[in-house]
Amino acid sequence: MSNKINFGNYFEDFSIGQKIVHPLPRTISEGDVSLYIAFTGSRFSLHSSDIVAKEMGYNKRPIDDILMFHLTFGKSVQDISLNAIANLGYAEVSFVNPVYVGDTVSMTSSVIGLKENSNGKSGVVYVHSIGVNQDGNEVLNFKRWVMVHKKDHSIKSDINVVPTFEKSAPINIVNIPTIKKVDTDASGGEFFFEDYEVGERLNHPEGITIDNSDHTLATKLYQNNAKVHFNDHMMKSTPMGQRLMYGGIIISIARAISHNGLFNAQWVYAINSGSHSNPTYAGDTIYAYTEILEKIEVNRDDIALLRVRTIALKNQNPKEIENPKEIENAKGEDGKYLPNVVLDLDYTVVIPKKSTKK
Amino acid sequence: MSNKINFGNYFEDFSIGQKIVHPLPRTISEGDVSLYIAFTGSRFSLHSSDIVAKEMGYNKRPIDDILMFHLTFGKSVQDISLNAIANLGYAEVSFVNPVYVGDTVSMTSSVIGLKENSNGKSGVVYVHSIGVNQDGNEVLNFKRWVMVHKKDHSIKSDINVVPTFEKSAPINIVNIPTIKKVDTDASGGEFFFEDYEVGERLNHPEGITIDNSDHTLATKLYQNNAKVHFNDHMMKSTPMGQRLMYGGIIISIARAISHNGLFNAQWVYAINSGSHSNPTYAGDTIYAYTEILEKIEVNRDDIALLRVRTIALKNQNPKEIENPKEIENAKGEDGKYLPNVVLDLDYTVVIPKKSTKK
Amino acid sequence: MSNKINFGNYFEDFSIGQKIVHPLPRTISEGDVSLYIAFTGSRFSLHSSDIVAKEMGYNKRPIDDILMFHLTFGKSVQDISLNAIANLGYAEVSFVNPVYVGDTVSMTSSVIGLKENSNGKSGVVYVHSIGVNQDGNEVLNFKRWVMVHKKDHSIKSDINVVPTFEKSAPINIVNIPTIKKVDTDASGGEFFFEDYEVGERLNHPEGITIDNSDHTLATKLYQNNAKVHFNDHMMKSTPMGQRLMYGGIIISIARAISHNGLFNAQWVYAINSGSHSNPTYAGDTIYAYTEILEKIEVNRDDIALLRVRTIALKNQNPKEIENPKEIENAKGEDGKYLPNVVLDLDYTVVIPKKSTKK
Repeated sequence: MSNKINFGNYFEDFSIGQKIVHPLPRTISEGDVSLYIAFTGSRFSLHSSDIVAKEMGYNKRPIDDILMFHLTFGKSVQDISLNAIANLGYAEVSFVNPVYVGDTVSMTSSVIGLKENSNGKSGVVYVHSIGVNQDGNEVLNFKRWVMVHKKDHSIKSDINVVPTFEKSAPINIVNIPTIKKVDTDASGGEFFFEDYEVGERLNHPEGITIDNSDHTLATKLYQNNAKVHFNDHMMKSTPMGQRLMYGGIIISIARAISHNGLFNAQWVYAINSGSHSNPTYAGDTIYAYTEILEKIEVNRDDIALLRVRTIALKNQNPKEIENPKEIENAKGEDGKYLPNVVLDLDYTVVIPKKSTKK
Repeated sequence: MSNKINFGNYFEDFSIGQKIVHPLPRTISEGDVSLYIAFTGSRFSLHSSDIVAKEMGYNKRPIDDILMFHLTFGKSVQDISLNAIANLGYAEVSFVNPVYVGDTVSMTSSVIGLKENSNGKSGVVYVHSIGVNQDGNEVLNFKRWVMVHKKDHSIKSDINVVPTFEKSAPINIVNIPTIKKVDTDASGGEFFFEDYEVGERLNHPEGITIDNSDHTLATKLYQNNAKVHFNDHMMKSTPMGQRLMYGGIIISIARAISHNGLFNAQWVYAINSGSHSNPTYAGDTIYAYTEILEKIEVNRDDIALLRVRTIALKNQNPKEIENPKEIENAKGEDGKYLPNVVLDLDYTVVIPKKSTKK
Repeated sequence: MSNKINFGNYFEDFSIGQKIVHPLPRTISEGDVSLYIAFTGSRFSLHSSDIVAKEMGYNKRPIDDILMFHLTFGKSVQDISLNAIANLGYAEVSFVNPVYVGDTVSMTSSVIGLKENSNGKSGVVYVHSIGVNQDGNEVLNFKRWVMVHKKDHSIKSDINVVPTFEKSAPINIVNIPTIKKVDTDASGGEFFFEDYEVGERLNHPEGITIDNSDHTLATKLYQNNAKVHFNDHMMKSTPMGQRLMYGGIIISIARAISHNGLFNAQWVYAINSGSHSNPTYAGDTIYAYTEILEKIEVNRDDIALLRVRTIALKNQNPKEIENPKEIENAKGEDGKYLPNVVLDLDYTVVIPKKSTKK
């Protein structure tokens, strides 16, 4: 047998402070952008038109933040989560600088926590990952933790180093050019920062069905090589019985659907926390609704931030789940996620103020 | 509930003379062009090769006219036909100027007719839509009419303003550069304007099967957001029971298939009328045949026009439906379209004359 | 009936020495490159990043050799194999010069052999095909032979001109720039020419399931118009009962999977022989393993060649078929390919030497 196959890392392969340079830097192309529109039907005008982007203050259209996330994040799967039992969480995900067609993104991670499980079979690995462009400028910065298998169940290390995370990504500088004007005829909606209220709920009306070819094409494009998404032969002998959709697909679809209601919120500033609360498979139709959690000023006249929570549902229209006030949205009386809830995403978007209206 | 969701327009939302600027200008990319070849297998050499395009008299290859149609037309769905019961027809569709990768297309519509249905539940909206590029030059000009729901069935307006349409798009200037030479080794066929005869029928031999992922990827790429094409969960509770294919997919496939017989007719000049005579669903195999209706000179030595009629069929080879002379092609003795006929497209193509042959 | 339909060539249409210029030159775009990653999940860093390519000695990233093969080869189907009963083999396939986005490839073939079958119904056509770029520089050179139908079974020619082929493509110049340095952090593996041993076997761990939309999108993108791959309606009345996957899809997937083990072997130098030993259909999961056949020096300090054999399997992990020494790998005791073996590809890759390690 050859020693040249990379089977990914197991719990014992990680150590605190270890730095991992993920392979496969990626030059982003117009093909990636078109495919992303084909996967999601995304309608945010900033990413659709160079003319709109120039009018707003850019030299050309930047790529969609979630597309950038997938292309950069995908690189870390081989080293961090190829042997993952579960992706447990994200925190402090910041979208630092805009990314354009022609940029080359790459990523490195540092191990910031390790906690062996008491059963001796697995452990949780915490990493801090930073994505940069060809000039070394940060484009993505996040922490995540995954449960991975151990190679040897008989040796126990009892390691227990658990980092703490901010509840929301810190608000630092906003690397967005001064927004000159927003053409609501182009963006499709006339609502600005001032128009949204904390507690407001947007039931996005669209639902999009995802098939096996779409989701596997997308995940392969992102060069995310987690086997569970591609190998139906292997998955048939698991309890799932079929290929599991990459959770990032749901984030993309929910974000695209949220356009209808958040037309002018064209930037993702941060992801504060995210939970893939139930699995999704080919044939599922994804719906979403959004709650406005917080309105945040950032010392600028042109833009501000909205912290929002988008809940994605499978095969259920958001109109059908309006919880009574005493139960948290998307959860049942037992405090657990409802069975059709597939994503609970707490994130922060940038939205222009009324003064920018053309 | 939020007031920020756009549910599209209902019959009462339209008024004669109203001008609608459709959102979402779109910069066309190389990714769109590659995806269009992947969707259709199109073999027209002018759109496949910069070298061929230059030899013919262009600076670089223009994009396929039908791809341009979808990318431009798709913008109008949100405002015009999101609540459509049926897309009733097109008229006077002109492809005015060539479009290239890097161009940004956008569209506006004027309401030119309104006719309330006698049942009080719906009405027909007639619009005149004009697509332009980033310099304001027209690239697409058409009229269409759709039946849309009313919001309030109890109030009747009895409005009845119906425009008249030309039977075929008017022949104006032809914005095609002087065609220097046509390399039939590159185009794949040696037939020119002079070789076709009125009444000639071309049974295109190819048949292409369309699956759910292909047609939804295409329709999402075009940012056409009509729900019936994407939402399987919703469609399961309708008589159709599944996602309906966007009719433009059939136009694209029929046009691509028609290459085998119309090799050198690489431009669509106009669509005179079109009918999606039966629905298509995933798994259907599309075939097509073309009849030559009219030969039209346009005062040029290099090119002329052919008015043709392409009939697309599902799951039936065109060889199998040769009507007797007394029955119109594609229709039964009762004058209705045969059940496998899914498109009846009367359009005009540009084709070079023999003098251009390399 | 029209005389303008091209039904492809039959055995009688070919003659020794005949030269065929295949239609449809193709300008390669960034869209093609992104789609290829989406189809295969390919992880070879040279084709993924301009930064990596520059560091190695290129001006920008060349396209994947197998993508170039499909885009160029696809052109010959219309003339050579549209009426093929079987694609019998390839020989002496050389990848002569690198190809980049923006290049336009085209292809011509010469008939070098003809052998009528004794049954009078078909014959074997041998062609030598050469692909060039826009400057006339060779990019692909190969011989192949296909069995095609005769039009008239009653007339026999008894022609029997069979060319001979080299067992492996000849080793000529290697048109690869001097490789300055290889960053194993980027390529994902630290193994170089010196590390591989003849006889070594690499069981690539990934398996990728292919669906109908993926494989038909790919084959249409390559403008390969063989009907068996697209027309489900027609195929339902054949013994196969469904669309047959284009064999090139399997070559692409096997090559992409082989990255895990052959990380730095980023160039295909030649294909010596190839056999599609069993058919593949939608839903099949493709696995692969590779044997190192030969180590070849080419008078360069930076690179050398590995001749390898990659076996692709459907729905079976390569770990499960380790033949005993006395039986050739991938074959049963009867000398025939095992039923799950779908590709036996003998090819030569370029791999850098240890001295290039960054």
